[in-house]
Amino acid sequence: MRAFNWIICGKVNWKTNVKYFVTMALLDIIKKNRSYRRFYEEAAISEEDLKLMVEAARYSASSRNIQPLKYYICNSVEMNEKIFPTLAWAGYLTEWDGPVEGERPSAYIIQLLDKNISATASCDHGITAQSMLLQAVELGFGGCIIASVKRETLSKILGLPENLEILQVLALGKPKEVVVVDDLVENGYKYWREEDGTHHVPKRTLDELIVK
Amino acid sequence: MRAFNWIICGKVNWKTNVKYFVTMALLDIIKKNRSYRRFYEEAAISEEDLKLMVEAARYSASSRNIQPLKYYICNSVEMNEKIFPTLAWAGYLTEWDGPVEGERPSAYIIQLLDKNISATASCDHGITAQSMLLQAVELGFGGCIIASVKRETLSKILGLPENLEILQVLALGKPKEVVVVDDLVENGYKYWREEDGTHHVPKRTLDELIVK
Repeated sequence: MRAFNWIICGKVNWKTNVKYFVTMALLDIIKKNRSYRRFYEEAAISEEDLKLMVEAARYSASSRNIQPLKYYICNSVEMNEKIFPTLAWAGYLTEWDGPVEGERPSAYIIQLLDKNISATASCDHGITAQSMLLQAVELGFGGCIIASVKRETLSKILGLPENLEILQVLALGKPKEVVVVDDLVENGYKYWREEDGTHHVPKRTLDELIVK
Repeated sequence: MRAFNWIICGKVNWKTNVKYFVTMALLDIIKKNRSYRRFYEEAAISEEDLKLMVEAARYSASSRNIQPLKYYICNSVEMNEKIFPTLAWAGYLTEWDGPVEGERPSAYIIQLLDKNISATASCDHGITAQSMLLQAVELGFGGCIIASVKRETLSKILGLPENLEILQVLALGKPKEVVVVDDLVENGYKYWREEDGTHHVPKRTLDELIVK
């Protein structure tokens, strides 16, 4: 069965030494890829790892293969401090102003539409956001797609040219929160938090998702 | 390094027998997930596998967690024959009318927007399409996102109620074609085929994707 968790893997290269490392089955990566909003801010993400995430986006499908998306990657403490105030966090948690200092993202990938290439992104930003976040999870990180962004302010901070339009921001880091998926009951889709900070996300059941 | 291909994996359960099986690293799944348009039509996809793909969608992010998407799954020969003529294939291959009999998809997942839940899908259909296609690849299948669909006709064929709007169709099967990714040169983003049928897809280089 496919319901395993952590697994130890090695190259199929019997002629040389088999090098062991840890990897996960896809569905486990997808399940572990929750929307994380609190991080160990001191845990940096290297430029190499951020580029690996963009590489995952690069190999993803694009409507009519036009590939109009570009990516601004950032892991500098100074720039992170400027980017953070332009983002709105967890709309349903009205009592919460977003992650406190020390629990903020240690990196960002900003998805941009290059309007010199195409006027629309179709759903390319969804496809590539998923690829990048899954890659982040496999690398031991996690993140959240943020669409509520002060775009004009952020564009100025990043010094973007006119043709690059901000679509959404991936906030990334080493997750510092427990996220639990529950079966959704009676259209109660709002996520919520226990007093101990455990974050609950109701998801529609497979029965509800599949049309007969 | 992460540039390995096939790997043998086993559960970390040292008390019982370690059960070995084959799995792949995420980036290899993403690279193997090309837009396949020709299949071994006789290679059926079970309902269980289709449901596993929807399960991958279920655990994927949704804008404000509203989860307005529903999924019509189909692996019946009779319904497949009715669905196929409603789809347009590979816009750039103007000489090609789509896969011939025997090379057509053996299953479909149709992504639907439930307008009783939300008027828009944001980019949820991109996120979940990627999850489902990656899951298909891990299961040994592959597919293609088709957005050029005779929606009204297909809706009647499926007998969909008014609130379910067709967003896009995933055509699925066991791939019967070789797809090669090349570096894109001078904005030549159109995919093309060699005489022997090898399908080439130009992708923008990492250098072009990352904004400095």
